[in-house]
Amino acid sequence: MKHLLAVLLCVGATSVVLAKAPSLSDADIKTAEALRDQALQDKTAYTTLESLTTEIGQRLAGSPSDARGREWAVAQFKKLGFDKVYTEEVQFPVWERGIESCEVISPFPQNLAVAALGGSVGTPPEGIQASVMEFVDFAALSAAADNAAAGKIVFVSHRMTAAKDGAGYGPAVIARVQGASVAAKKGALAILIRSIGTDYQSRSPHTGVLQYDQTTVRIPAAALSNSDADLLARMLKRGGPVNVQLKLGAQTQSQTFVGANVIGEITGSKWPDKVVLIGGHLDSWDLGTGAIDDGAGVAITMAAGALIGQLPKAPKRTVRVVAFANEEQGVYGGKAYAAAHQKQANQHLVAAESDFGADKIWRFDTAFGPNALPLVDSFMRVLAPLGIERGANDAGGGADVSPMRAFGMPTVELQQDGTHYFDIHHTENDTFDKVDPAALAQNVAAYAAFAFLAAQVDGELGPPPAPPTGR
Amino acid sequence: MKHLLAVLLCVGATSVVLAKAPSLSDADIKTAEALRDQALQDKTAYTTLESLTTEIGQRLAGSPSDARGREWAVAQFKKLGFDKVYTEEVQFPVWERGIESCEVISPFPQNLAVAALGGSVGTPPEGIQASVMEFVDFAALSAAADNAAAGKIVFVSHRMTAAKDGAGYGPAVIARVQGASVAAKKGALAILIRSIGTDYQSRSPHTGVLQYDQTTVRIPAAALSNSDADLLARMLKRGGPVNVQLKLGAQTQSQTFVGANVIGEITGSKWPDKVVLIGGHLDSWDLGTGAIDDGAGVAITMAAGALIGQLPKAPKRTVRVVAFANEEQGVYGGKAYAAAHQKQANQHLVAAESDFGADKIWRFDTAFGPNALPLVDSFMRVLAPLGIERGANDAGGGADVSPMRAFGMPTVELQQDGTHYFDIHHTENDTFDKVDPAALAQNVAAYAAFAFLAAQVDGELGPPPAPPTGR
Repeated sequence: MKHLLAVLLCVGATSVVLAKAPSLSDADIKTAEALRDQALQDKTAYTTLESLTTEIGQRLAGSPSDARGREWAVAQFKKLGFDKVYTEEVQFPVWERGIESCEVISPFPQNLAVAALGGSVGTPPEGIQASVMEFVDFAALSAAADNAAAGKIVFVSHRMTAAKDGAGYGPAVIARVQGASVAAKKGALAILIRSIGTDYQSRSPHTGVLQYDQTTVRIPAAALSNSDADLLARMLKRGGPVNVQLKLGAQTQSQTFVGANVIGEITGSKWPDKVVLIGGHLDSWDLGTGAIDDGAGVAITMAAGALIGQLPKAPKRTVRVVAFANEEQGVYGGKAYAAAHQKQANQHLVAAESDFGADKIWRFDTAFGPNALPLVDSFMRVLAPLGIERGANDAGGGADVSPMRAFGMPTVELQQDGTHYFDIHHTENDTFDKVDPAALAQNVAAYAAFAFLAAQVDGELGPPPAPPTGR
Repeated sequence: MKHLLAVLLCVGATSVVLAKAPSLSDADIKTAEALRDQALQDKTAYTTLESLTTEIGQRLAGSPSDARGREWAVAQFKKLGFDKVYTEEVQFPVWERGIESCEVISPFPQNLAVAALGGSVGTPPEGIQASVMEFVDFAALSAAADNAAAGKIVFVSHRMTAAKDGAGYGPAVIARVQGASVAAKKGALAILIRSIGTDYQSRSPHTGVLQYDQTTVRIPAAALSNSDADLLARMLKRGGPVNVQLKLGAQTQSQTFVGANVIGEITGSKWPDKVVLIGGHLDSWDLGTGAIDDGAGVAITMAAGALIGQLPKAPKRTVRVVAFANEEQGVYGGKAYAAAHQKQANQHLVAAESDFGADKIWRFDTAFGPNALPLVDSFMRVLAPLGIERGANDAGGGADVSPMRAFGMPTVELQQDGTHYFDIHHTENDTFDKVDPAALAQNVAAYAAFAFLAAQVDGELGPPPAPPTGR
């Protein structure tokens, strides 16, 4: 209720400036074009990501390497010439993976490659042994009668489809997020889902967070690799009972952990208190080294900010680059940022998070007010030569930005090509070797040009349309 | 010495028939064409491989699932209508993988994905901790001074290149086969090699067998995934010492295991004691489910034999399909077959093993005597429509066939396209979903046509040229 009031107030405050149409000068466009072309030749993002993945590696929120990652981010912002570098506290619970195994006991003894879902409870040390009951998708599981899966291990076998805009993720990921509690309501002892991923070439399960209902018993939950989901489905097709033993050592620590968002700024020359926010999230899952999710986003936006910082004259507004804490397990960094900066929501001209891998940007989506929509053409003059199309005016802005978006802050999304993103998303295969330096530089060019232009805008970009739902 | 004498005797015996040029009738060619076309539509190999990988899975030699695999093979031969099904004893030591981990301790704590090499000894339970010394390839390691790597963990970073004919394997695999003993001679405590594999998209290490020198201390040996080899190389490039802790629970059991080659026959109608041998190896590594290595070879040759067995009239010679035991850890099945059948070497017209994956066959290599070379044209009349070229007359025949080849038996190789074979070879990713049913059927068509024609040949195909060396 308090939040809703805040949204109304902010939207009201923003609407005051509606009368004045925002603008950019030709000189600003020229500077942005030069920044863009310089960025295409610049290796800062690539060397930054190389450094992060080589010297730190995986950064599971709350782990020792997550803490090393924060130290790295502070040092890297300073090294890249940001003139203000600081951290802001973020609190969250710490989840640990522990051991994990999944074994078909009968009729065809085989090991299945499995990864606990983030936030899952563990099994008893001796594991849970039960026969498997397959549901073709989350809807079929939801539609089952109460106790339909009593004493069973539920298996949701639905396969995610690949798409440039990642459209297959939403319909598939609900099984990961809500499957455990729905299965528990049907009486299941545990749940196995087919990995939310589009790969065929690897036997690597895709982890990712789940959400337990507050009122439902918490059952262990894990993802099978696509290959192993196929294998289990083939066993089940033979008709007889398939008995599986699942062992998960996963647990959540009782103490709250204090992490931090790490922030670097290029201070504005005219309106230092006004902010253009770009960023990525510093945490990752533990299986790979967090290269594409989301070392790339951190590296892209750090490099974009650094290039802006090297301009002869600082931009009018402050360019704030945020390396968010613990996005993966519940957008903790983004929520903490919004809680800390809610009152300054209308000092944020616009925000964008890079968190969809390291492939090229192909579309520029906005969430601007009607008055600011003509200005999209000015942005597009600089972005179109990068192969970027104009998109819709419904941008969410990215997970860590969405809580501020709810307070009336305009956002954009520089949409990356996600055709192959979900092949390696949340797997052990998320490593530096998957990143193409040219594609990464194209991202930096787009972010540098966008952030610089936004920092120069004379006027405001809001109020944005209502935030999208169901994302 | 005894072996050499046997070779000379056999070659002598075969040369007696040199005067008579072998031949095939037009009716034989027609039957082979019909078999070929039928095989292209036949699903037996695919369902056989589905059954093997689903109901049995990995078949590490000497493991319980290896034993289940033999029972499966006996039952499957019978199910497919082979009129004689039997086993022949094969003895070998049993190697167990145990736990395995590799951790960079300093300066950049990270886990590296690792797999023990087959036959490796284990580390002490607390592991081996030492700094890493990189060699760019096996030659560089070999050229190092004695004690150059004293107290170190050696890392051979050479990357294998992909090629249609697998030509990159030989130059790379020597580091896996001989690296441990050479590193031990330089004083190393353990050896890590970059995986002998061509994948970029997975963090899966490639296992495979090593050979220890009899006179050198045995040190633990493991393969890093390509991604992790890159990572370690990047760490080392920074100049300071990189300390790694390697733990391997690998061991070889003291008792010899008694396994078996499993054999199915379509008995010859005219010369039942004369044999055309085709086959694959039934054992696999333990990380995947042994689909392309070498469930495919077993399925292809079983299906080819089964189709021949369905002909209205059995072919003149016996078609013998052999599912060899324990190829992976030292060609034990092939050597046992040769030891048992050495005296009947000249009753084997020709032999071929399918053991290079499940992609399409593109070349027909032979090892025939000069008198038989014109007959290759007859085989090619039936094979060329499958997209198969005529190759050279230097075929080795495949690992399990090579010991018989050494006794003067002619061989052929139906060369598969190996461009992507080493992406998943010996990894956890060797699973059924990688197999294209159409490519598998093309293999069956080639093997069925070849084996039928060979069984009909009036005359002999030898003596073959001297066996190739260094393969």
